[in-house]
Amino acid sequence: MNKRLPNEPITNIETESTVQDNTRKHFLLELYGCPEKIIDDVDHIRQCLTEAADRAGAVVLEVVSHSFEPHGVTAIALLAESHLSIHCWPESGYVAIDLFTCSPSGDSQSACEYLVTALQAESHELRVIERGK
Amino acid sequence: MNKRLPNEPITNIETESTVQDNTRKHFLLELYGCPEKIIDDVDHIRQCLTEAADRAGAVVLEVVSHSFEPHGVTAIALLAESHLSIHCWPESGYVAIDLFTCSPSGDSQSACEYLVTALQAESHELRVIERGK
Repeated sequence: MNKRLPNEPITNIETESTVQDNTRKHFLLELYGCPEKIIDDVDHIRQCLTEAADRAGAVVLEVVSHSFEPHGVTAIALLAESHLSIHCWPESGYVAIDLFTCSPSGDSQSACEYLVTALQAESHELRVIERGK
Repeated sequence: MNKRLPNEPITNIETESTVQDNTRKHFLLELYGCPEKIIDDVDHIRQCLTEAADRAGAVVLEVVSHSFEPHGVTAIALLAESHLSIHCWPESGYVAIDLFTCSPSGDSQSACEYLVTALQAESHELRVIERGK
């Protein structure tokens, strides 16, 4: 698991699985130290969600979101390639992101790099897991 | 990673992380050998989704789903506790399930056991990952 500053490139990603040609990749991204105002704004999170999906080369079929009281935001995109979810805990500056795609031509890493920057994370962790066999 | 028959209890779950009191658990469940008719039926998958969420003790805030052509189903529940997603590849009998919750009182394992049975999987794999720190 790697921690990086927001502007550092995401490299040296941990990968589980021995299957080389599996196109089902699940990126699990944890963001820490995100400004409360940024990640408690459901409209902003939805914008970031769709922009990230676009950068991943994914097709968004539907977006759902919820703003919790007194704080917290969830936004989920149902993709033609699977899903992208963003869960925000503004009280602790933490965001959990899942980008699960089954397209061999997508660029999930670029989407993750965008989200690290857009949500102004002080640090982050990224795991990549292959799904299925 | 463990493979089991449908009726075997889910035990000996692999867990990543050293944080003992973290309540953000992400269950990644892979189902293999599911009957094509069962997992290409979007209404059935939606029913299983809401039943599984209920068994997990989660509160469903919204459900979205999509039936792909010529085959394939995705259903996602936005939960008060995070999300539950089911992606089905009927052509290969494979289903990828994610149950991400942040409730200390939930029973995600029971929900997973239910889905293994309801979707008639011949075998399955379950990983449990703690999210955040």
